[in-house]
Amino acid sequence: MTKNLSRFDTSSREMVAPISFAEACSLVAAQSTAILSTNALKSRRCDLLRALGRVLAAPTLADRDQPPFPRVTRDGFAVRAQDLVSGTSLRVVSQLRAGEPWPSGNPPLAPGEAIEIMTGAALPPGADAVLMVEHAQETLAGSMDDSSVEAPLVRHVTPHTGRTLIAGENVVPCGSEARCGEVLLPQGTRLGPEQIALAASCGLLSVPVFPQPRVAILATGDELVEPSLPWPGFELPANQEKTPIQSHQIYDSNSFALSTLVRHAGALPLRQRPALDQPDDLAACIHQGLDAAPLLLLTGGVSMGKFDLVEDVLATMGAEFFFTGVKMQPGKPVIFGRIPATATRAARYFFGLPGNPVSAMVTFRVFVQPILAALSGEQCWQPNVALAKLAADLAMKPGLTRFLPAHLDTSQPVATVTTVRTQGSGDLAANARANCYLIVPEDRDVLVADQIVQVLLR
Amino acid sequence: MTKNLSRFDTSSREMVAPISFAEACSLVAAQSTAILSTNALKSRRCDLLRALGRVLAAPTLADRDQPPFPRVTRDGFAVRAQDLVSGTSLRVVSQLRAGEPWPSGNPPLAPGEAIEIMTGAALPPGADAVLMVEHAQETLAGSMDDSSVEAPLVRHVTPHTGRTLIAGENVVPCGSEARCGEVLLPQGTRLGPEQIALAASCGLLSVPVFPQPRVAILATGDELVEPSLPWPGFELPANQEKTPIQSHQIYDSNSFALSTLVRHAGALPLRQRPALDQPDDLAACIHQGLDAAPLLLLTGGVSMGKFDLVEDVLATMGAEFFFTGVKMQPGKPVIFGRIPATATRAARYFFGLPGNPVSAMVTFRVFVQPILAALSGEQCWQPNVALAKLAADLAMKPGLTRFLPAHLDTSQPVATVTTVRTQGSGDLAANARANCYLIVPEDRDVLVADQIVQVLLR
Repeated sequence: MTKNLSRFDTSSREMVAPISFAEACSLVAAQSTAILSTNALKSRRCDLLRALGRVLAAPTLADRDQPPFPRVTRDGFAVRAQDLVSGTSLRVVSQLRAGEPWPSGNPPLAPGEAIEIMTGAALPPGADAVLMVEHAQETLAGSMDDSSVEAPLVRHVTPHTGRTLIAGENVVPCGSEARCGEVLLPQGTRLGPEQIALAASCGLLSVPVFPQPRVAILATGDELVEPSLPWPGFELPANQEKTPIQSHQIYDSNSFALSTLVRHAGALPLRQRPALDQPDDLAACIHQGLDAAPLLLLTGGVSMGKFDLVEDVLATMGAEFFFTGVKMQPGKPVIFGRIPATATRAARYFFGLPGNPVSAMVTFRVFVQPILAALSGEQCWQPNVALAKLAADLAMKPGLTRFLPAHLDTSQPVATVTTVRTQGSGDLAANARANCYLIVPEDRDVLVADQIVQVLLR
Repeated sequence: MTKNLSRFDTSSREMVAPISFAEACSLVAAQSTAILSTNALKSRRCDLLRALGRVLAAPTLADRDQPPFPRVTRDGFAVRAQDLVSGTSLRVVSQLRAGEPWPSGNPPLAPGEAIEIMTGAALPPGADAVLMVEHAQETLAGSMDDSSVEAPLVRHVTPHTGRTLIAGENVVPCGSEARCGEVLLPQGTRLGPEQIALAASCGLLSVPVFPQPRVAILATGDELVEPSLPWPGFELPANQEKTPIQSHQIYDSNSFALSTLVRHAGALPLRQRPALDQPDDLAACIHQGLDAAPLLLLTGGVSMGKFDLVEDVLATMGAEFFFTGVKMQPGKPVIFGRIPATATRAARYFFGLPGNPVSAMVTFRVFVQPILAALSGEQCWQPNVALAKLAADLAMKPGLTRFLPAHLDTSQPVATVTTVRTQGSGDLAANARANCYLIVPEDRDVLVADQIVQVLLR
């Protein structure tokens, strides 16, 4: 599965055939599984309201049966279902609101009786169903044979003609959602609003979470200049100077893209200054990154060029490479590997992402995210993909799995995807106008308008 | 479009027919447009690395042409395309790396010459295309008529048999992605990693963003108890006591769900303590919320019950209601409206979301999110929906647009959705096992396995 490439002389570089996208995903998944099975992450307490996006470090158990009582789901009348026969009229004997206890001395509901009841209340003893207020007619009357003003009015409720009920209707049985002690959220769950709501419903104000993994980020390339400009009209901080940029140079954008992608994935980015295309500087920066974090993301220096030194420098450090090229576009030169553990440091994972910005972002989303999820202790990570309708025909050369910057329009009844006109994997402007990537499987040479296609969401 | 409901006596409550889901979306969209056209949001400076999820307060312009030079996209040899005729051999006269300037005294590339060049470098003058290193053969030779050891070796490059180039091949023209001064990111753009990368590529270290709107959150209901439990094994803070809960009470989970949904949407939640089902307490809490934030989210108290006072209390405050019921499930009793501006306070928007937790979360995602986006200054908000393949047949009563908690499995080649077994819109446990909602249009009574369906993503 893995190979050791211990060479440094770039002139002797061998062509290693790139593997398929599916194979690359499998290799990444295998490492995710390995990480999850050996992770020794500590648990720490996190306020529930700050736990969004964090990963649960222990299962959440139901604190009691859920619901804790037979919960009424409609406003209406608690009744005995068998009492609802044609022409029946039930006497309303009392009222029960949500949050109101059933008085301990009260007798259970008797035949011919009804209790006016509200959504969220506990069904009182003796009742087995709720007649919806919309399905009933209320009447107020004194006794027939007594016309004195003082006679108390008696409320009655009559179901609409033909309306019957079965036992349990409009009631959720006690414990039917979960039994006391049952696992509601397994360890390794990534907490979204829905999971946080469930923890709150068990009365929890804090939850145990895993720490967020750190990720070292190292852009490489002599052409890179660090961004230094404030917004026009804003002043530079006093201690900072504007870096002049020359016409053959570009600003480093990859370390910003990766830092925010890492943060978006719930981890902590450690952005390093760009490394030069020189073995000594590159090695020093890589060592710094590996010392600081369990995962190092490099960009650039992974193509066929004479100054693409990343793979070679990593090889001198004893790196094990899982892959060094994938049949995908963009992202073909992507590398993935591991530096074995030493006496003083655990094993480190690394990715050498391509220097082209769109390639770096796509390879992050498909390969780095699952590894980052595993380092976070997240179980059951899934790629962020879905389907959409293709707006227009597309033709392409088969042989590569393609990720085309595209715009998904979800304001129509059927979500429709249109590719964005682009100058290629360096075109940051086109990629920022896009909001997803259209996925073209490697065996396709044509996609047809109105066809259902796969999209990688952002 | 709107109606004023100024009644307080709940016994006289009129049945207002719920509107369709599509009508409700249109009414929300109309208010979003109104908000965006009248918003007077201030701009503030934000460090680029902290700008993830923020909304751009001014357009980002290209600081120079992008790319700023004809950018080489492959490692290889800069050539004149017309020189590549069968059997030709070009003399390699120099080398150019990415980030290396073309020496100002150097003459342009002459016929018959090639320059070894790396991805990301600027194409030198005279060259018009790049021959990929994979498509060429290099040779080293002395002069044919000179065998002395001192004779310098001359490098030549020969394209593989039949390999030709057209002008511009493997080069992105200067300014083809964007022209200097062109708008790259319009005002109102929500900044994701792709947009932040583009801003960095213009050299920016900070961007102007709109402030995050505040959102007041008020759960209502006598049955609600505030969560107060630390995780088992963790201690309660010294100043906090565990609130006892009785069997007919439940913990407030809605304000936790909404707080994290608000935060996830890039806004600032202000969670209030739950209000009682009493007009005075409810009115006091509503006033507090309206004073604190431009948007108030209430949950509960919006059904047909005798103690569903939310609509009535809001009506006494002069509320204008855009809708007071939608033909959807869950979420039918949802209300949306506005309290007009006063001398001392701008107009306030409010939603009365249902008390059932799943209903509250669904109505947040479809109705509150677009209003929140507008209050954030975000242009072009779109619902977070996509398509998926349905795993199994489903039958339902038509007439309501349904959102069924479901599980989207994206680990298969075709994203497939399966509904989750649930006890209804109070079933937080089932909803937390789901990761999306399957959308069933109101005119459907059946969906068939393998059919392509709509899902509301989380």
